Amino acid sequence: MEFRDLLLGLALVWVTAKVAGEALERIGQTAVLGELLAGVIIGPGVLGLVHESQVLHGLAELGVLILLFEVGLESDLGELLRAGLQATLVALVGVAAPFAVGYGVMSWLGHPALLAVFVGATFTATSVGTTARVLRDLGRLQDADAKVLLGATVVDDILGLIILAVVTGVAQTGSVSLATVGLLSGKAVAFLVVAILIGIRLAPALVRWIGRMQARGTLIVYSVVFAVALAGVADLMGLATIIGAFAAGLILATTERREHIEERIKPVADLLVPVFFVTVGMKVQPAMLNPFAENTQFSLAILLTAVAVVSKLGAGLAVYQRGVRRWPVAVGMVPRGEVGLTFAGVGLAAGVIAEDLVLNAHRRGDAETFAAPPWLKTLYRE
Amino acid sequence: MEFRDLLLGLALVWVTAKVAGEALERIGQTAVLGELLAGVIIGPGVLGLVHESQVLHGLAELGVLILLFEVGLESDLGELLRAGLQATLVALVGVAAPFAVGYGVMSWLGHPALLAVFVGATFTATSVGTTARVLRDLGRLQDADAKVLLGATVVDDILGLIILAVVTGVAQTGSVSLATVGLLSGKAVAFLVVAILIGIRLAPALVRWIGRMQARGTLIVYSVVFAVALAGVADLMGLATIIGAFAAGLILATTERREHIEERIKPVADLLVPVFFVTVGMKVQPAMLNPFAENTQFSLAILLTAVAVVSKLGAGLAVYQRGVRRWPVAVGMVPRGEVGLTFAGVGLAAGVIAEDLVLNAHRRGDAETFAAPPWLKTLYRE
Repeated sequence: MEFRDLLLGLALVWVTAKVAGEALERIGQTAVLGELLAGVIIGPGVLGLVHESQVLHGLAELGVLILLFEVGLESDLGELLRAGLQATLVALVGVAAPFAVGYGVMSWLGHPALLAVFVGATFTATSVGTTARVLRDLGRLQDADAKVLLGATVVDDILGLIILAVVTGVAQTGSVSLATVGLLSGKAVAFLVVAILIGIRLAPALVRWIGRMQARGTLIVYSVVFAVALAGVADLMGLATIIGAFAAGLILATTERREHIEERIKPVADLLVPVFFVTVGMKVQPAMLNPFAENTQFSLAILLTAVAVVSKLGAGLAVYQRGVRRWPVAVGMVPRGEVGLTFAGVGLAAGVIAEDLVLNAHRRGDAETFAAPPWLKTLYRE
Repeated sequence: MEFRDLLLGLALVWVTAKVAGEALERIGQTAVLGELLAGVIIGPGVLGLVHESQVLHGLAELGVLILLFEVGLESDLGELLRAGLQATLVALVGVAAPFAVGYGVMSWLGHPALLAVFVGATFTATSVGTTARVLRDLGRLQDADAKVLLGATVVDDILGLIILAVVTGVAQTGSVSLATVGLLSGKAVAFLVVAILIGIRLAPALVRWIGRMQARGTLIVYSVVFAVALAGVADLMGLATIIGAFAAGLILATTERREHIEERIKPVADLLVPVFFVTVGMKVQPAMLNPFAENTQFSLAILLTAVAVVSKLGAGLAVYQRGVRRWPVAVGMVPRGEVGLTFAGVGLAAGVIAEDLVLNAHRRGDAETFAAPPWLKTLYRE
């Protein structure tokens, strides 16, 4: 009975994702926007045909992990490192500008400083999933812009870790030790450096060893195991799982079997990636957008969303390299980062911010996620 | 935290499945036996490294479904239908012989008739998953034996439905109406006939329509949706989900895109199918095999297991066609059917059979599942 529900739910997720994705592509938009909208429509917010279950959630999380693994496979570690300084600058401005603006607006509205700090923090998070998907679908992963954006995402995730440590410390003890922050970011950087250094040294031998196996499907299974294992270790280090999967893709991209792995991961990604974007859409509650509902603080929501989007575009100002386009980088930094909701959750638990501001952050994130795909598409069409 | 457990659990399932599968292949056995053993070792029975979670269970169920979909894709509906009478005979004897022997032994041991009926029923169930996997891995799906076995499995599932109706009726009201049995089997047969007739008529147009889509991954997603949807409908009709997925594969095998679908489903099957067999292994509790433990009725268990295996081989006696090998068909009918445990559960709930006999049926099923792969491998090596 339970498995039948899963089967029918999955069938509905896939069919609506494909139909809406195809329809949106036909009118010049991206498939991912269609998948997000499909999620809104079949989710609890509108029709309520599919509800998030543990299995659907697990498939979705595996989906975004496979997406970043695939993006890593299609990327070049050398080029990414050469874009390193530029990417770091974009990430730093992409965090600092939204924080400053979010803090400033809340202070200007007369809110206490601690509250303003938390709202500022929720402004900073960027999620790479949506942007990476759009760039992949548009075949733009080899552009200089993509290198900067992917590099910035990795740096951004480390900065997010530091901000989380700071806001948690401030919420719990009113202060934060520099040692804690240093240890956390050191661990994260060390993981990335060590994983990639060891990885590119061991991967060729490993891939050759796998080539000697007789059983069917050895290459695809060990490749996914590598992605899943690095994702798990990244999570242990406090980083996002998708950063670990991306690193795994980067490492395997340096081996001679890169194309074989890419070819075999494609159908798996085709099945699992849409499940992720549909479930992101399912979390949207259009009812919360009703301006006439009580206690929604609609005008504040509109103001904060506008300010958040505009301030995130500030990352584009950090572009100094020739050949890197300012606007795609700026817009690529817009989509919601899940970690922003974690910051809001910490603030709520500590009693620093109220529930309506958490809902606010959620809605703002939805708007950012939905705004980015059509915007990027328009920029790349020019 | 929870997602990290899933990631590390999945990595462990995949690595042990591949290592054990490879090792068993190297010593002349089948990979599936290695995966079953890997499950026993990492599961709660021995090391307890991985526990079954909802997500793992969902992935495993999707895995066996994809396996049968793939087997269907590699099969020919016409040949299967030509083997129809032979397959039906094998299925009928494969149900009648074990039932008669199970009933006879229990009566001879002095147990009441109703109890003997239930034990006889638990003897009848056959699962196609293990046999289909071995035949696929050995490249024997095109043999006449495979057609008979796959056809017999479909018939066997319908017979299982009838037996379930009978034992449930007998347990609840002491009798069973012929109308109920007729309705149930009619529904199941009608589903198969209608699904396949409509399917092969509509599939070519559908596949052409899918070919016109622009979005990436349309073919694989719609193919899997078709399998998942037919599995869901089969479940609604009281049949096993894998029968629906098998029918979906048979239907798509008649289209011009058969090879494209096969090529894309392969990596998905490579990832999900081992998860199924490892979780089957995880359910085995070696501690229950301890002959010195109290209340295990060890001698009865050994007797019933031996009798169950031998009586299932009776199906081979129904082979009359030339070119169909008696022994592979007989041994292919041996693996445990999940529905046997359902019969036992109904008997337990009705108070007709005691818990030790249910455990007995479980252990017997484990033995059958583990015995079939090496046996089949030996037969095909000759």
